[in-house]
Amino acid sequence: MSLNHKLQAYINGNFQLYQDTFLHISDLSIQRGYGVFDFFKVQEGKPVFLKDYLERFYESARLMELTVPLTETELTASIHQLLTINNLPLSGIKMILTGGYSANGYDPAEPNLIIQQQPLQLPTQDMIEKGIKVITHDHVREIPRAKTTNYAMGIRLINKIKQAGASDVLYQKDGVVSELPRCNFFIVTQNDTIVTPSEDVLLGITRKNVLALAGKKYRAEERTITIADISEAKEAFLTSTTKRILPIVQVDDMVIENGRPGTITLGLLQDLIDLEQQL
Amino acid sequence: MSLNHKLQAYINGNFQLYQDTFLHISDLSIQRGYGVFDFFKVQEGKPVFLKDYLERFYESARLMELTVPLTETELTASIHQLLTINNLPLSGIKMILTGGYSANGYDPAEPNLIIQQQPLQLPTQDMIEKGIKVITHDHVREIPRAKTTNYAMGIRLINKIKQAGASDVLYQKDGVVSELPRCNFFIVTQNDTIVTPSEDVLLGITRKNVLALAGKKYRAEERTITIADISEAKEAFLTSTTKRILPIVQVDDMVIENGRPGTITLGLLQDLIDLEQQL
Repeated sequence: MSLNHKLQAYINGNFQLYQDTFLHISDLSIQRGYGVFDFFKVQEGKPVFLKDYLERFYESARLMELTVPLTETELTASIHQLLTINNLPLSGIKMILTGGYSANGYDPAEPNLIIQQQPLQLPTQDMIEKGIKVITHDHVREIPRAKTTNYAMGIRLINKIKQAGASDVLYQKDGVVSELPRCNFFIVTQNDTIVTPSEDVLLGITRKNVLALAGKKYRAEERTITIADISEAKEAFLTSTTKRILPIVQVDDMVIENGRPGTITLGLLQDLIDLEQQL
Repeated sequence: MSLNHKLQAYINGNFQLYQDTFLHISDLSIQRGYGVFDFFKVQEGKPVFLKDYLERFYESARLMELTVPLTETELTASIHQLLTINNLPLSGIKMILTGGYSANGYDPAEPNLIIQQQPLQLPTQDMIEKGIKVITHDHVREIPRAKTTNYAMGIRLINKIKQAGASDVLYQKDGVVSELPRCNFFIVTQNDTIVTPSEDVLLGITRKNVLALAGKKYRAEERTITIADISEAKEAFLTSTTKRILPIVQVDDMVIENGRPGTITLGLLQDLIDLEQQL
């Protein structure tokens, strides 16, 4: 168990050492993988785009018929209390809402709410400068609009990704791509249109911000992306809370353009960093 | 938390009170829904078809790239030790293997192994005599051959099932049915052939036994079942470890034959009870 021994976590109204924070095994997250979560960045001690993440957390709960036991105001206050206690200026905060301690191991009970804070690992400069390779896998996420704790497919593919010398996996079904396990996917077409899939994806906060930033300089579209579209793309990248924008230079055997991160991708990354600074 | 205060559970080599058995929140089952499990019945203090369930447990672990920390002999010994400690003659035993305490909340670590024992709730005589109604839902399970802890879809549908006045849900995709969240599905055709889906299903131990029992008296087949097949069926039923065989008399608006449990179904249930007694 690799734990940071100083950090505290929140669980059901209490603040306590993260290392001492446990759930009883009757919790539906353990018994049935039933839970939702969300994750946002803290920079210089301040949550980044917090309101968007809270909104999505409540929406995920609603889609999974779970009730967040705190109002948004109360949850925000608890987050700020944890920030003060831990004093970790660059970090990630994860909120997890589970199906609770189920009497029969199936029916949901009163949900358990956890808030945990961890040091943040941003992509290395090397990854940004070289870009990454991804493989594809035939899959579409269940209930894609909900940020559930179900990452069974992504984690099961970790070894396959490594064996292929890749960094991540892009889900596709019948030639239509959707998303990566923890990231959204974008391409830049030959006529400089920024495109991201509209269907069967988690509505990423970074995705939303990048679409808005892209729309100021280029045409930005949410529509179907096929494997054939990728093979003709000028640039490709992923977006996520932690990774911001990371260039993708190869998808399976398809090298994107000249195999190097594109200028539009890197420009959007700078725009995103600037936007985060303005908060 | 509704817990039986006397029962003990096994966790990573230790026997302790079930009520005191917890996992740290860094466990991948909590963080990412990553785990497999299996569940078998204990009757008159003896595990029923134990070897089959253990085999499937190890196979689920293999499919999810997890390693059971005990050999089959060691696991069997631990199960028998728990049986002796708890002395609960009619019960269910669940083994859960999780992705372990992950340092980064994504990469699997050393798995956690839990064995828990609970009183068993068999279907009521009334349910068997009347049969149940099920609804259908457009879904096919991820990695169906692995008994993962992911029941997000089934649990999310609990309220929808209740609202429809039904007892369970049958997954179908493009008119082809697969299974229920915790049960396999069978029909009896007008010419007395017993049929169960071959693809995209968990290989139930009760399913296997029922196929063998059915094969002694009737034609028994594993093949595709469509919604149209159900509408023409003479009988329908589900199988599961806990429920054995339970007649299904209605699927959505389709009443099966005369809406009453069929004689072949009830005969197979008796055959199954007899088989369990012979162990």
